[in-house]
Amino acid sequence: MVGLADVVVLYSGGKDSNYALYWAIKSGFNVRYLVSMVSENEESYMYHTPNIELTDLQAKSLGIPIIKGFTRGEKEEEVEDLKKVLESLKIEGIVAGALASRYQKDRIEKVARELGLRVYAPAWGRDPEEYMRDIVHLGFEVIFVGVSAYGLDETWLGRRIDEKVIEDLIELKNKFGIHVAGEGGEFETFVLDMPLFKYKIVIDKAEKIWDPYTNSGRLIIKEAHLERK
Amino acid sequence: MVGLADVVVLYSGGKDSNYALYWAIKSGFNVRYLVSMVSENEESYMYHTPNIELTDLQAKSLGIPIIKGFTRGEKEEEVEDLKKVLESLKIEGIVAGALASRYQKDRIEKVARELGLRVYAPAWGRDPEEYMRDIVHLGFEVIFVGVSAYGLDETWLGRRIDEKVIEDLIELKNKFGIHVAGEGGEFETFVLDMPLFKYKIVIDKAEKIWDPYTNSGRLIIKEAHLERK
Repeated sequence: MVGLADVVVLYSGGKDSNYALYWAIKSGFNVRYLVSMVSENEESYMYHTPNIELTDLQAKSLGIPIIKGFTRGEKEEEVEDLKKVLESLKIEGIVAGALASRYQKDRIEKVARELGLRVYAPAWGRDPEEYMRDIVHLGFEVIFVGVSAYGLDETWLGRRIDEKVIEDLIELKNKFGIHVAGEGGEFETFVLDMPLFKYKIVIDKAEKIWDPYTNSGRLIIKEAHLERK
Repeated sequence: MVGLADVVVLYSGGKDSNYALYWAIKSGFNVRYLVSMVSENEESYMYHTPNIELTDLQAKSLGIPIIKGFTRGEKEEEVEDLKKVLESLKIEGIVAGALASRYQKDRIEKVARELGLRVYAPAWGRDPEEYMRDIVHLGFEVIFVGVSAYGLDETWLGRRIDEKVIEDLIELKNKFGIHVAGEGGEFETFVLDMPLFKYKIVIDKAEKIWDPYTNSGRLIIKEAHLERK
């Protein structure tokens, strides 16, 4: 598993991409860039959109260059846009966080194959509970920035993932069948700190947005800064 | 001058890097990435720092992936950090905006030589007045976001570069010797629109910061969004 290969990590700022990054560096990979694909669609081309700029703060804290590619966000197009971003990089592999589906995994593997790259998905196939506990035990500071599932209400936004949260998620799994690690899109997370960060992220101003009709909501981080650990 | 080479454009979001980008695309270069070096120093590792995140909006408007590299910001280190960002890219050249000095130009050329890249600096050696008029005539919408020179006061922040501004700058050149295109660090600019942007940037919220002791100030763009042209 130990490599000295040059790789990129697909990076959204949440627990999965940060776990993938952590795994890659601990496994000896040379992470040349973080890569974020940003959607160009109506909703998300606003500057003050869900925390996209915050990946800059994370990248700065890590000291790893970040590449942002843009996509209209339609499924097939997004993969082609990712390919265009990756094809001019001198890398040997792509490291991806937890993948939502076999379909998504297949598409990333297709791009990788076309570019002659390997794909590493360290969280793929892992037991969700064990995976969540691993993240807590490694010292990741992770908060919920989006929820969209029956049983997850406004109070979850901004909540930090700890043992109690995992217990609550297991209860919700047993009651309503949600995925404990949120792989079905039940929730989105943001990492404020983890062992590789040189600085931790401190939120100065945030706002909850809740839609009672869809029973979903978001924590919009409006201002944040880095602080020495 | 016509090329089909793959290049990056060193990009800060101001008039010079946008002019360089415009020149590169009109000259037939294939601009694979914009590259911004972000300083890690105390002042600038704040999230709400001088408009750095706004380059994301510009990149999105352009549909060109942007790479942000991080540097402690000390002069020699910055060049080494730039080299690390560039060395894993499959490119043939670097396009740079107006360069402040022979020293800066030499350093970028040194990095390029070490990486086997060509350097293109389309604004280098041009007459400053003619250059400024060119930018206006091409339809660039450029505002002042930083001023730091005798003769430039708070009222210049947010002002849009047009013929009248150029006349005023020429007057200040004659009176106080400032560089009409700001190459001596007299001012910093930000591009809200130019012919290659698919969307224009609209500022929703901005704040002027003025320091009477150094007679310098900044316009901090706090919220902005893209709008169809």
